[in-house]
Order: sequence, then C-alpha cells, then structure tokens
Amino acid sequence: MTEQFDAVDIIRAKRDQEALGDAQIDWLIDAYTRGAVADEQMSAMTMAILLNGMSRAEISRWTHAMIESGERMSFAKLSRPTADKHSTGGVGDKITLPLAPLVAAFDVAVPQLSGRGLGHTGGTLDKLEAIPGWRASLTNDELMAQLESVGAVICAAGAGLAPADRKLYALRDVTGTVESIPLIASSIMSKKIAEGTRALVLDVKVGSGAFMKTLESARELARTMVDLGTDAGMRTVALVTDMSVPLGRTAGNALEVRESLEVLAGGGPSDVVDLTVALAVEMLAAADRPAAEADVRAALADGRAMDKWRAMIAAQGGDVSAPLPVAKESETVVAPESGTMVSLDAYAVGVAVRRLGAGRARKEDSVQASAGIEIHVKPGEPVAAGQPVFTLHTDTPERFARARAALEGGWTVEPEGVGGGVLGGALAGAASAMATVDVGAGALVGAALASDQSVVLDRIV
Amino acid sequence: MTEQFDAVDIIRAKRDQEALGDAQIDWLIDAYTRGAVADEQMSAMTMAILLNGMSRAEISRWTHAMIESGERMSFAKLSRPTADKHSTGGVGDKITLPLAPLVAAFDVAVPQLSGRGLGHTGGTLDKLEAIPGWRASLTNDELMAQLESVGAVICAAGAGLAPADRKLYALRDVTGTVESIPLIASSIMSKKIAEGTRALVLDVKVGSGAFMKTLESARELARTMVDLGTDAGMRTVALVTDMSVPLGRTAGNALEVRESLEVLAGGGPSDVVDLTVALAVEMLAAADRPAAEADVRAALADGRAMDKWRAMIAAQGGDVSAPLPVAKESETVVAPESGTMVSLDAYAVGVAVRRLGAGRARKEDSVQASAGIEIHVKPGEPVAAGQPVFTLHTDTPERFARARAALEGGWTVEPEGVGGGVLGGALAGAASAMATVDVGAGALVGAALASDQSVVLDRIV
Repeated sequence: MTEQFDAVDIIRAKRDQEALGDAQIDWLIDAYTRGAVADEQMSAMTMAILLNGMSRAEISRWTHAMIESGERMSFAKLSRPTADKHSTGGVGDKITLPLAPLVAAFDVAVPQLSGRGLGHTGGTLDKLEAIPGWRASLTNDELMAQLESVGAVICAAGAGLAPADRKLYALRDVTGTVESIPLIASSIMSKKIAEGTRALVLDVKVGSGAFMKTLESARELARTMVDLGTDAGMRTVALVTDMSVPLGRTAGNALEVRESLEVLAGGGPSDVVDLTVALAVEMLAAADRPAAEADVRAALADGRAMDKWRAMIAAQGGDVSAPLPVAKESETVVAPESGTMVSLDAYAVGVAVRRLGAGRARKEDSVQASAGIEIHVKPGEPVAAGQPVFTLHTDTPERFARARAALEGGWTVEPEGVGGGVLGGALAGAASAMATVDVGAGALVGAALASDQSVVLDRIV
Repeated sequence: MTEQFDAVDIIRAKRDQEALGDAQIDWLIDAYTRGAVADEQMSAMTMAILLNGMSRAEISRWTHAMIESGERMSFAKLSRPTADKHSTGGVGDKITLPLAPLVAAFDVAVPQLSGRGLGHTGGTLDKLEAIPGWRASLTNDELMAQLESVGAVICAAGAGLAPADRKLYALRDVTGTVESIPLIASSIMSKKIAEGTRALVLDVKVGSGAFMKTLESARELARTMVDLGTDAGMRTVALVTDMSVPLGRTAGNALEVRESLEVLAGGGPSDVVDLTVALAVEMLAAADRPAAEADVRAALADGRAMDKWRAMIAAQGGDVSAPLPVAKESETVVAPESGTMVSLDAYAVGVAVRRLGAGRARKEDSVQASAGIEIHVKPGEPVAAGQPVFTLHTDTPERFARARAALEGGWTVEPEGVGGGVLGGALAGAASAMATVDVGAGALVGAALASDQSVVLDRIV
C-alpha cells in the first residue's frame, strides 16, 4: 500500500527541530502500531524527541494518536463518580493499596488499572499477587461490575487501551529513551484518558528513587500531564512528592501489603499515612465529593477503609484471612556506631530489593512475593551501635551479598555530637527540603526528609 | 554469553553528553556487527551521536573499531605508490571516471573502491555499468593484478572491508541519521584506512546537491576526515568544492560516461576538467610523484589518459568501442523568455534525474543506464526564448511529468536588462562565491558559480 508519509522525513523534521504536524503524528503512531514503521525508525524518533523535546501541541496530538490506537472505556454508567490516581513510581510506594479502598469508602469509584514493577521500582500488581488467590486480570465487564458493587478495583490494564503505548514503552526501555518528559507524560495520560476516568490525581515522584531527579523536571512533568488531562476534560491535579528516601518502612511485595494493612488498621508509618490521606483528599475533591482531612483520617481509624479493602480483595479471589508469605531466609544489617541516621538513598534500597528477588531486571523475570527489606531506622532517627538498621528477606540466600553491596554507601549514621546541626538545618523548611532533591542524577540524594516532614513538595493544578 | 557492557548504558551516556570510553566503543561496534546490539538500539545511538556529536578521540576510536570489524588490505607490494580519491557525492559528479586513468598515466596506482547511487546523487559503479560488458566486482587478487598491470581500477568495495560500516550505513539510511559529521567521516575513513592506500584526496562537496549544505559544515567534515587520515599515517588532503550547481552538462549514467570521454579526449566542460586536474595534482603530490598542472592537462590533451582509460575498462570486460546506450524517449524544457541563466539548483536536477530512472530511491531499485538530463545552459550563460535548456532522457516516458515537476523552480532565467548586475556582482570573487553556498538547507542555492568560476572553494590539509 502507498503510505501517506515517509517515516524518515518525520524523523528528520524532529531531528532538525521542526514542529510536527497533526497528520504526521497521527500517521506515525498508526503506522508504528501496524508495523509499517520499524522499531529502529521509532527508536531514532524517540531519541530525537528526548533530546529536542516536543511543543505542547505536539505532546497533545501524540497523546491523542496513542489513545486512538485502541479502545476507549467509559465509567459514565456507574452510579458513582470516579477518581483515579497515578504514581510515576518509587521505592516502597504501596500507596495505591490503602488509597483505593479509602476513597471508595466515601462513595467515589476508584478504577486503578495498574502495572508491574520494572527496574528499581515496585509494581502494584506484583504486591497484591502476594495475597493468596488474588488475580490481577479482569474483563471490562468484571471491572465495571466490581466498581458498581464494591467501588474499588486494582487490576491489570487491558491490552485494548493505547496499544501503541504498550509497544512504544517496551521499545523505549531497551533504547535509552525512557527519561523524556513528553514521552512519559503521553504514555501515562493516553492510558488514563482512554480509560475514561473523570477525575485524576497524579503523584509525581522526585529524588534518587524516581525517574525525575530534580524538582524542576518533576514540576515540568506534572505541569505537562495536568495540561493534557485538563485539555481532555478531566479534573486533573498533581502532587509532587519526595522519593529521595523510601516511603514507609518496607520495600518488597508481601512486606508492603503487610504495611498497607497496618495503615488500613489505623496505624502504619506517618509518611505513608500522610501521603495516602493527602491523595485521598485530592481525589475526593476532584470527584466533587469533597471531604475534610480529619474525616478521611477517621475512615482509616474506624475500619471503613479496611472493610472496603476486604471486599475489594475478596472480589478478585484474594483470601483476606490467609497469612502472607514469609521469606525462607533473612539477614540484618547493623549500625557500625551509635548516632543518628542522616541519609537513606531510595535508589540504593530499590536496587537492593530487586536483587533480593522482589523486582525485575527484565520484563520476563518472575518475582518473589516475600523478598524485600524492612527499614528499622529512617533519617532523623537515633540508632545504637550493633542495632539492626535493615532486615533483608529472600528465598534465595545467594542473593544477600549483591543486595548488601547495593546498600553500601546508600545510608549514613552520624555519631552523636558530630555535625548534629546538619539534619535539623537541612530540614528547617519547605524551601530547604526542596533543595535536597534539586541535585543532578549522579549525586547521592542523601539527607532528605525526616519522618516528621511532609513528603508533598508541591501541588500543580 | 555474558556481555562486557549493556547497550542501554552506552546509549544513555552519549544521550547525556558523557564521553564514551575506548572499551565502550569497541564493544558497541563489535556487538552490533555480530547482532548482540539490536538495530533499534543502534539507531537510538546514532541519533544521539547526530544531535550530541563526538569528540575527536571518540571519532578516532569509532573509526578504528569499524576497521577492526573486518579485513585490512595493503598495497605495499605494488611497484608503484598508490593514491585514492573519495567524493562525498553530488549531481553530475563523474570526476572519478577521467581522474583514475589520468593519475595512473603518471605511474601512480589508483584503487577506486566505489559505491552505487542513493537518493539524489549518482554512483560511480552505476555509471560504468552503462558500458557494455563492464563488471564492477573483482576479487582482491584481480584488483591487485590490475593495479600492477594497468595502474587504475574502479570496482565495488569488497564485503570484507569494515562490515560494521556496511550494516550501520544501511541503518542510518532508514532512520534519518545520515547527516552526522562524525558518522559520515568515520564511515568514509574506516573503509579508506582498511583499504590501505598511502595517500588520499577528499573531495568534500558543499551546496544544495551535497549532504553538506553550508561551507562551515563542509569544512568541519573535511577537517575531521583529514585528521583521521593523518592520524592513521595516510597523506590526506581535502578540497572543498561547490555542489550548488551540477558538475558539467550531463547527469545520468551513460550521459556522464559520454562526457567523461570528452574530457579524456581533451575537451569537455571546463568545470569538470578543472576539478579533475585539481584533484589529479593533489593525488600526485600526496603520492610523492608531483606534477605541474600544465603537465597534467597535457596528459588529457595528448591521449595518455585515454589510453589508460581503455586499458582499465577493457581489463574489467568493458567494450570500449561499443556505442553507449541511448534512451528510447526524450523531451526538452525550453526557456520561457530570452535572458541569462542566473540559477540552477543541483538538488532539483538530482531529483529529476532520479525520477527519470537513473538513480535509486531505495537500495533494491534498479537503474536505467540511459536515463538522465543534458544541461544546455548553465549559470552565466545566455539563452533565447524557446531554446532548449534541458533535454530529458528515459526509457519510460511516464516518468517525464514528475521529473519536470522536480525541475520546477530549480532554475531561473533573468530577462535582459533586469538586474543584470546581480550575477556579476555575486560572482565577483571567492568570498562571494562562498557566500552563495553558505545558506540553510531549506533555501534554494541559486545564483552560484558561473562556468568560468573555480569550483574549488577551500583546501584543507
């Protein structure tokens, strides 16, 4: 067949910093989806986009073309409004687990179409699969029925949504073209717009454990996605949140489910609770069912969120009373001297967790449900010499050595009386908290937020 | 097997403007040649190189790695010194045909390992294949024997020289990553260094009909290649020459052979003769057999070069007395009014010639030996209304319309008395001649050099 355009002409245009037209973008995405544009052409294109950027109009059309590559869903027939959340991914980020049932407890439907972990970040589906019997795959009809009956679903995104993005993401992963704000924004937003939610809250992570290493780039990504959502008629809000230290005190699939259950039982680490509540407040407001922060906290304390969790897990075959899997082996890492933990690098923890077997280096790898790390001491907290700082878990103990190596240099305990003012000073206010994440990709993001500091750094609407 | 590096890490390093190490480059080229690095990874890499550049050290190592991907030849056993020439390609560039026998007439061996045409530029092998019986493929032994007996060979480069470049060039062609000075320079020079010539003269074309559109970029390419050759111990010189107008009065395979025979018979268009002589003088000097320009011109006038031509063509099976093929159909394009030709765009002519069937849009296309264009009026020359400006030749007359369309707007005749000073003024000296090519890729390179102006714009050693 005769093609409307030549891929090389379009690549050259972007390479030479010319603006791409709507028809060029539509053709390129369509032709790539059906195989008329080759992988090696698209990867040259994505590298040109990464280095030369895209205008707001180009990003918008690129996103639109990816939506058009597949089906569109709609939640309009539901009896409740819907609100969705997306996190750009981090270490120990189990927020979706308590958040979805918490929001559903306020009669707002939460359709969380989620993914699996890749690289140093975890995946929501991998975490829930630690629960015996739970299944990630639902048909569209099952999804709709559960949203109506329970009000919350966490499941795998169907293959029908934005298939162009699926193909493009796999390509970017092997060609060094992941870290492009236009491509990240269009990838996320094409799926969310195709999904049909009317309200969306974005959790844009920044810091060593996130794709975005600087506050500036995280704000730009947040702004780009909020604009795309707003232009598509979705109520869209973004919180820019800290990912220089892991969220909570666990990283790893079953360990994170356990910590989520603590939050749903009214306890849990304050950073996880605070971020869950902050995102819930935003989602409820975006869905036109506003609730005060205190009311939201109450729903965690009084068991309403836990009830929704049980219904949600059970609806997908999960056994809510079965014990969570426990790793066959564990080891501890202890503090070499007494003092205060002053830095804990999320990226180092993420890599160590993956090396224990909890995550994937490649898509085709399987994960261990019980592998992961417990973090006993977080920045700002004291520790005595010889006390455990981390407990490492795995079914395959030959993995311990490389996991320990990943943690090496990723945390610092400062002895009493030595530079004691550094931590307090660095965390004195929002401005300095932001400064801690505003570093280049190569630098260690260290003395970040103490556990009593808010992880929310900015809000973009 | 376990690989020494991860391709994604190397792509990301170049993407992020980090310098590549020798071991990274060696591994990448080797792994790509044996298929361990995928095409889509290499095309992302070449786009990153195109946009971020390479240092002199990186280009040198890249070239070295491509040489190491294949065999190395040597002409050390020949009884004569060798000198080779490479042109970066243009429209009507038949210079290799008279040049190789002309230099051989001075007892310097000329091994011209040549290619085929692609895009709007012609290929030396395609031109010679217009001669009945002539064959392009020689074994290395045949090549050496002919260099010893005749002193000149024009043949296809063997598959053994720099196979990494062969694979990489095909990839760059379909991914919009051809126009990179580091990649062009390493592609050309890896083959020339592997070939083993001791002296090399580069003809770096600049203007609308060349890859390099500006004098600045042509000089940079020339400088990069001269440095690579010099570092490898080759006597290397580059002439930067004008390709804003076609060379000579013909473009197309058999038509260009005919024009080359005119030059070898002591006649021919002055721009073709002048460039042939200039390059011959450089090659003889580089091979330590210096000859004065007058002596070189004499070898064209007295038949010595023609004798070498006949021996060279006959040695490869060519019938030097057979008539050249003539196209079945021809049409003329006439001047709409009387005046002076003030501009003639090489690129427009190149595209028209390809559309007549003389060149390839894709590698697998075949070419018509007899298709092409005769140019009756060149810039600076007068023409009367209704007189032919071009004669178009093809065996397939349905091609005329699209060839005419390509010429449209590519030439200008200015009526008598209107702006008569423009041409003379624009061509008053070398500085303004250079200025005519110093334009962006999008602009029409028009009122360029009159036929009495030197096409040599700069010399780089």
